Amino acid sequence: MVRKLSIEARGQGLHEITREIAELVRESGVEEGLCTVFLQHTSASLTIQENADPSAKHDLERWLARLVPEDDPLYTHTAEGPDDMPSHIRAVLTSSALSIPVLAGELALGTWQGIYLWEHRRRSGPRRLVVHVA
Amino acid sequence: MVRKLSIEARGQGLHEITREIAELVRESGVEEGLCTVFLQHTSASLTIQENADPSAKHDLERWLARLVPEDDPLYTHTAEGPDDMPSHIRAVLTSSALSIPVLAGELALGTWQGIYLWEHRRRSGPRRLVVHVA
Amino acid sequence: MVRKLSIEARGQGLHEITREIAELVRESGVEEGLCTVFLQHTSASLTIQENADPSAKHDLERWLARLVPEDDPLYTHTAEGPDDMPSHIRAVLTSSALSIPVLAGELALGTWQGIYLWEHRRRSGPRRLVVHVA
Repeated sequence: MVRKLSIEARGQGLHEITREIAELVRESGVEEGLCTVFLQHTSASLTIQENADPSAKHDLERWLARLVPEDDPLYTHTAEGPDDMPSHIRAVLTSSALSIPVLAGELALGTWQGIYLWEHRRRSGPRRLVVHVA
Repeated sequence: MVRKLSIEARGQGLHEITREIAELVRESGVEEGLCTVFLQHTSASLTIQENADPSAKHDLERWLARLVPEDDPLYTHTAEGPDDMPSHIRAVLTSSALSIPVLAGELALGTWQGIYLWEHRRRSGPRRLVVHVA
Repeated sequence: MVRKLSIEARGQGLHEITREIAELVRESGVEEGLCTVFLQHTSASLTIQENADPSAKHDLERWLARLVPEDDPLYTHTAEGPDDMPSHIRAVLTSSALSIPVLAGELALGTWQGIYLWEHRRRSGPRRLVVHVA
């Protein structure tokens, strides 16, 4: 099963999408298999992180923003705004696809793991994902 | 085939798990396919790296420890100790899942490639992996 | 279907291989499924990035080269030359495998996404990839 999914723009940062992906896995009827989530953009990314304490999410966002800041004189790709080039770099350092096994009809995530869409642009349209379950 | 695997705690750093994964692939009986290794934690990660020269492993560990140090005043997520937040960041910069094709019943790794569990905590319990082969 | 692919050496930097992968997907005859590209090396890597504006590619290459420079006194793994250890680190920060869904017989890439082989060595032989489509 391959399904398209559109996630509404929610501003810069980590946005949990575990519920949306878990729902697609249930709809697929797959009991034992693999779920792959793919993001069709290069200025946002996907990651699996702790979903228990919001301070971990907050620190992650600030750490990556500091490692890849907006005002770096190295950038020549600046036509689309100061947040464009850092978005591409932040996306490359994280992931455009995630693969998670399916067990007993559910995503085999660890107790504290959540699936996140990481929006790197200040403003963007909805983000398109393609989810494969088999 | 989906199998759970538990790797005993072995301290901070890169621990090769190629043998354990190769064994599961052989057990699966899959001749041509794909093996996906997924880690159910957010303070450890997976990576594929050179398994020939221990100095490469050593430099990798030290480089990442320097990029993401323990004593960073940016961290607010500090309740679980000084090695907790750097663990999450180091995990995000590497991988929580690896996919490796299977050819002639074996993992199609390159000559010098090994699969590693990267433990980012100073102390941890056993780490749980879920391996999908199909 | 699992296929081996050899990409001729093209010097340090990002080299687009979308066409080569798309061709294998077409050959596989898979209409709806998943394509996984795996690189059998630890001093080169794979990434998905914008293929529209060459300045984004250029900035990415320069940014990673600055984050992981050649002349770092931290390195002890130096026997194979000054570009060897940075190659391993740059590979770990990016990816050795990419998974992309297949829809209507084609890679489900976003409008601006391209698949890239990132060569981190100054000189290398051809790079071997293994592509799984199912």
